[in-house]
Amino acid sequence: MNLDAKTAKSELTRAAIVGAGLNLVATEGLEALTLQAVADRVGLSKSGVFSRVGSREALQKAVIEEFGRRFLADVFAPSMQKPRGVPRLDEIVRRWLARMSRPDPNDCCIYVPGAFELDDRDGALRDLLLQEVTRWRAALRRTVLQAIEAGHLRADTDAEQLVSEIYALAIGLLHDTRFLRDPAAPARALASWQRLLRSYQT
Amino acid sequence: MNLDAKTAKSELTRAAIVGAGLNLVATEGLEALTLQAVADRVGLSKSGVFSRVGSREALQKAVIEEFGRRFLADVFAPSMQKPRGVPRLDEIVRRWLARMSRPDPNDCCIYVPGAFELDDRDGALRDLLLQEVTRWRAALRRTVLQAIEAGHLRADTDAEQLVSEIYALAIGLLHDTRFLRDPAAPARALASWQRLLRSYQT
Repeated sequence: MNLDAKTAKSELTRAAIVGAGLNLVATEGLEALTLQAVADRVGLSKSGVFSRVGSREALQKAVIEEFGRRFLADVFAPSMQKPRGVPRLDEIVRRWLARMSRPDPNDCCIYVPGAFELDDRDGALRDLLLQEVTRWRAALRRTVLQAIEAGHLRADTDAEQLVSEIYALAIGLLHDTRFLRDPAAPARALASWQRLLRSYQT
Repeated sequence: MNLDAKTAKSELTRAAIVGAGLNLVATEGLEALTLQAVADRVGLSKSGVFSRVGSREALQKAVIEEFGRRFLADVFAPSMQKPRGVPRLDEIVRRWLARMSRPDPNDCCIYVPGAFELDDRDGALRDLLLQEVTRWRAALRRTVLQAIEAGHLRADTDAEQLVSEIYALAIGLLHDTRFLRDPAAPARALASWQRLLRSYQT
């Protein structure tokens, strides 16, 4: 095996470790993410996992960051092709709601269950999650501000208020889909969003 | 000690066990609730806890039911003194939001973090929590239906839709208060509620 092939194999192994970690977090929660638990899932020794990702903290960081990348790639990036303002905001929210409706437990979701898991627990893991969530809310707020600037939303729109309302809608949908397992939840959430958006439109 | 005093003492001990369990769940989650963990908190042996509440499952049931009693006593019961219809619905939602804003981790909250903790885990504990949450949503739906009957809300109001929207609002507030620790969150949630209510009023 030449050096390139070795590097490629090592990157694949690392990706498998992070993917297994993401799946573990999605089903068991952030605190369940340990080197040993991931090692068991990918069929490596604990030291084998350590040699590829480092400490438990580094593994947690890698998994949360990987989730953030997938989330942005799913929800945010494709919406950039829509015109600034309400078309883009609407696309983001619809994509987000679609993601929340999807029952795939492999990568849905970390931000919300993680927030309720860690809300009382100060520490590096909470800080990391908070940083990611804060960044996502900031991106959403910028999109809302652009829609106000474009004259699509009323000039007196409180961007922070609308961001919180959108966030609550998405969390509520996740709750109704994943916990209540109510098949009518996605349609209800979409109707709520249309109603909410209308109430801010000029 | 006569028999009455013995019974009173035994009930106090049981109440202390359930209270410690509630606190444990509020800070660590439902899965952290074990006979041993509660025994450590109240200074009893594990068998001492078992002799008073029974199995771990019985303890989980007792704690979830105690939370339900406190929640209803805080949010629902006092609202019954308001007239049927929007005055009562408004009182319930305001009391619920106030409870979600309160940072006391002793008995706030089990339904929401529990839902995200157990969403993927089938079993008796999930069933029990789902039953409690379903009962609470049914009480909320009845209150909404009364408000429609009273002519306070538009006749075409979809009660299930409004219940989901109120629920999402409350969950969002818990998220913003407990995880983001945003002091502006309660005022924002109240503004959202007023806006939401207005949009359904006749």
